Amino acid sequence: MRDNIILLAHGAGGLKSADLLREVFLPHFANDVLCQMADAAVLEGGVGRLAFTTDSFVIDPLIFPGGDIGKLAVCGTINDLACAGAMPLALSAAFILEEGLEIATLSKLVASMGETARAAGVRIVAGDTKVVPRGSADRLFITTSGIGLLPEHRPLPAPHRAQPGDAVLLSGTLADHGMAVMTSREGLQFTSQIRSDCAPLAGLVAGLLDAVPDVHCLRDPTRGGLAAVLNELAAASSVCIEVEEERIPVHADVRVACELLGIDPLHVANEGKMVAIVPADAADAALAAFHSHPAGQDAAIIGTVQPTPAARVHLRTPLGSLRILDVPAGDLLPRIC
Amino acid sequence: MRDNIILLAHGAGGLKSADLLREVFLPHFANDVLCQMADAAVLEGGVGRLAFTTDSFVIDPLIFPGGDIGKLAVCGTINDLACAGAMPLALSAAFILEEGLEIATLSKLVASMGETARAAGVRIVAGDTKVVPRGSADRLFITTSGIGLLPEHRPLPAPHRAQPGDAVLLSGTLADHGMAVMTSREGLQFTSQIRSDCAPLAGLVAGLLDAVPDVHCLRDPTRGGLAAVLNELAAASSVCIEVEEERIPVHADVRVACELLGIDPLHVANEGKMVAIVPADAADAALAAFHSHPAGQDAAIIGTVQPTPAARVHLRTPLGSLRILDVPAGDLLPRIC
Repeated sequence: MRDNIILLAHGAGGLKSADLLREVFLPHFANDVLCQMADAAVLEGGVGRLAFTTDSFVIDPLIFPGGDIGKLAVCGTINDLACAGAMPLALSAAFILEEGLEIATLSKLVASMGETARAAGVRIVAGDTKVVPRGSADRLFITTSGIGLLPEHRPLPAPHRAQPGDAVLLSGTLADHGMAVMTSREGLQFTSQIRSDCAPLAGLVAGLLDAVPDVHCLRDPTRGGLAAVLNELAAASSVCIEVEEERIPVHADVRVACELLGIDPLHVANEGKMVAIVPADAADAALAAFHSHPAGQDAAIIGTVQPTPAARVHLRTPLGSLRILDVPAGDLLPRIC
Repeated sequence: MRDNIILLAHGAGGLKSADLLREVFLPHFANDVLCQMADAAVLEGGVGRLAFTTDSFVIDPLIFPGGDIGKLAVCGTINDLACAGAMPLALSAAFILEEGLEIATLSKLVASMGETARAAGVRIVAGDTKVVPRGSADRLFITTSGIGLLPEHRPLPAPHRAQPGDAVLLSGTLADHGMAVMTSREGLQFTSQIRSDCAPLAGLVAGLLDAVPDVHCLRDPTRGGLAAVLNELAAASSVCIEVEEERIPVHADVRVACELLGIDPLHVANEGKMVAIVPADAADAALAAFHSHPAGQDAAIIGTVQPTPAARVHLRTPLGSLRILDVPAGDLLPRIC
């Protein structure tokens, strides 16, 4: 590129827009569908039911221990498709760039997106770039959307399908992403660096669904953390979800950071974890499936579904008492994803 | 809503996020797929080839004569699907909101999106909302993505399919959108207000494809205007496209505004127009199809495809001379869409 920073002209649809596409985006995203550069990508293949999802990513800082906004944008959309029980088919990526953004930074983030998508076996087939004047955005926002293929003859996981007696599983440790971002933003030093768990989970979920075809609920505990997800599932299914605090895995460093900052790890965002609710007799098979995948090494059965009180989440403390686990009401941490 | 403006907590995934979704978005977007509020929407129906597209919208001002950012976001994505020859199946919408945005403004824009989508017969089935602190974005950005269904046994329009001898059609007047935004932004007064052409064109395109099944190229001349689109098609097809200046429809008010501001209407963005390239013997049928649709009343055959010089666009002036029509190199107007 002749330019080192993003100019308004890079968003104007003319020659500089074409330069940006050809020199920054296509080298990392190149595939036969995207390279046709049509207004819409054309996807071939006999397709039945589809899953469709979108998310904007506005995280600050752009690069954090364990990941960056590009990796996060790809993982987040893959994971939303996985939550629907879908195999990711294709992603799109739309960029809002602030005039003055270093092209080197953009290239690094685009490369990270390409690498993450390739590793997960998913193509980025459509995209868009807009540039806004200095001060009208903070450097870079990315919106990814995704299409996934759903199996034809299998019940799908859905928020309303939790049933009394079901087991509640968590695929690994809580709060790594949120605390990695918070400690890196605040410049806090711990004995070892806390790293985001940001990871694509389509493979983990495919393994789970092979072992347990009738998973009742699947959800990734992002914004609002485990507390928000469990409350959503309890409300959608009109059940009580009871989890045991001692069984919820949290890295020692993350626990210390949460205690120092007065934050409940159950309220913190994760970007590489899955919550699964399965029939009781499938709980061991589900746990084994999680454990057999690199992203599920720390998986645990953390609780059960009870019939009442409906739309409530109970946390059993190490002392045996029950407390209500609420959704975080205010804003824990802006721009966490 | 208890709140009048957007707070950071509206983006935190907790109770206020749920309030915003329930009170601002769902009333306008409600449909059975979106209301399941799962991580990904599930779309039923036996589906063959798919079209997939995404665009971010950052237009300033948010509301302009003839439209607003919400209407624009829905139309833009429907039109990109239409350009692929697809029938729109479903849209997603992702919002990046600046802390402090008036909820009343947001509601108005969301209502406009819902109304536009309903009128076009398309559902918004997935969404996301992020909030960034004051100063980190300018009020509101919207990213829409869309999935469309492609016919199984029909050649699809594509940028590389223009052939020597083909006719070039334009579905109506040029430069209405860009000049409406520019004059409203600059506070310029003309005898009558210039209005954006912002409109969904799936119906217009469906009528064209019924009349002329083998349309070679379809493209909506947005950023960069007709000049950018014709240059892209000429390059992708390795042909010369020759258009006659006198045949290109431009409203009288728009022409005056362009002359006053020293802007070529062929470089200005449109949001409700289609360029179609069809076999010569189908040109009259294509024109009749455009004329039979309300959005195509001013359609015209504006030129032809020539074998050489490849990747070049020629404009024949009223005096009969030829000039090269280039892509705008710099930035005509930031935040036009």
